[in-house]
Amino acid sequence: MHSLKPYTLLALLCLFVLPTSAQTKNNTLYTAGHASAFIGGLYDAVYPYTKVLKHGDFGLGAPDKLDGEVLILDGKIYQTQATGKTFEVKPTKLTPFAVVSFFRAKKTVKSTCKLSKNGLFKYLDSVLTNQNGIYAIKITGSFDTIKTRAFPPVTRPYLPLADMLPLQHFFTFNNTSGILVDYRLPVFMDGPNITGYHFHFLSDDKKAGGHIVELLTDSITIEIDELDSFLVDIPQTEEFNNFDFKKDRREEVKRVENGKKD
Amino acid sequence: MHSLKPYTLLALLCLFVLPTSAQTKNNTLYTAGHASAFIGGLYDAVYPYTKVLKHGDFGLGAPDKLDGEVLILDGKIYQTQATGKTFEVKPTKLTPFAVVSFFRAKKTVKSTCKLSKNGLFKYLDSVLTNQNGIYAIKITGSFDTIKTRAFPPVTRPYLPLADMLPLQHFFTFNNTSGILVDYRLPVFMDGPNITGYHFHFLSDDKKAGGHIVELLTDSITIEIDELDSFLVDIPQTEEFNNFDFKKDRREEVKRVENGKKD
Repeated sequence: MHSLKPYTLLALLCLFVLPTSAQTKNNTLYTAGHASAFIGGLYDAVYPYTKVLKHGDFGLGAPDKLDGEVLILDGKIYQTQATGKTFEVKPTKLTPFAVVSFFRAKKTVKSTCKLSKNGLFKYLDSVLTNQNGIYAIKITGSFDTIKTRAFPPVTRPYLPLADMLPLQHFFTFNNTSGILVDYRLPVFMDGPNITGYHFHFLSDDKKAGGHIVELLTDSITIEIDELDSFLVDIPQTEEFNNFDFKKDRREEVKRVENGKKD
Repeated sequence: MHSLKPYTLLALLCLFVLPTSAQTKNNTLYTAGHASAFIGGLYDAVYPYTKVLKHGDFGLGAPDKLDGEVLILDGKIYQTQATGKTFEVKPTKLTPFAVVSFFRAKKTVKSTCKLSKNGLFKYLDSVLTNQNGIYAIKITGSFDTIKTRAFPPVTRPYLPLADMLPLQHFFTFNNTSGILVDYRLPVFMDGPNITGYHFHFLSDDKKAGGHIVELLTDSITIEIDELDSFLVDIPQTEEFNNFDFKKDRREEVKRVENGKKD
């Protein structure tokens, strides 16, 4: 008798693969800035969103001086501050770090299972079969719970992001609907990018958002795009030129990503 | 009394900084393939040079199945085989790994000092002041000695490049003139790219070349271009998707770069 892996079984029970047209304008993940340097304390914005949007209409990032979290959807920029306030940002504003791509779904799956963040990661791992693939993921639908965080704005002297985790503000939304903008980046992109999963949220009414800390899905549609290249735009600043890349920041990045202090 | 560092003194004695116009078509370093994966044994070519040349007219790389070394100059591709034979390659051919940029000199210096490879590196370090800068370097002139290497073509099963160092063929050219195509890439580009210095040679008569192992300069002109971004084109192959990036190959890369067995 054949034995089914738990997530294969899950797929049979509550997931439906839908055909999707795959017209890709550009297959490159674009990074404005350098993740390790940003997390190390380079929070001053240098990239106009007008430049970022030339490389993608979908993505996530950070506002100038870390004043919350940023999500980019259909070429529009949304900022969620530590107060919870969420609003659209003019493309003439600047960002210190953003990751974007032109999102064109190549595969679509649906789920009506109740998945926690880890459950969702495990399920996505079973769908995103290329361990070295660069994936953009768009998840829309309803959620029993979404827990997000946002950082307050920083003042100099800037501390590394891992040292500012106690300053995070958290928000919990129950029975909400909205969108998750996500990337899963392979281990070889570590350094300039944040590897593994990275999710930001925006509610349907565009009034709530933030960096995902925990969730419980209700009924969701998962659209997946696989990219074939990545472009890193390096800050042309003295602060970047003097940044010490010899320090291993992988543990810090992991803590920042999870929103946990240790 | 002021003390002068040795290479500052060198600069005063035998180097002249010349003004150069800086018109840059594209400031991006383009990598076709992934250095760690290539060095780990992915020698089958997948990128047509026609594609590579869209991203740069200057650079270096490897031929299909590691059959020597490649240098790209003024949009032409030159291959040096393990026999020493050096010839132009049609752009319709393929490469497994190449690094290119559009070379536009932003700074030019001249040297009439006798510099060994290490002496040249140290001197360049004093000129390339941005530790986190992405530099393309073109060196033309006369050399007392140039020592290069080239690998013979491989057959399956492919071994990692570091295990094939005993198969290298070496060539020594005395009182020669030609060009060195070089990059100095910052530590944060490690993995997809080879960091530090990486030099390939082509003689003026285009009949000799290879990967630089040692040299002694005579009278040279050093042109320097600084880039502000990098683009990595990932192989869309099963072999790449299954490649294990968790192994630390930094020591292997260093040995391959130096051409030394241990």
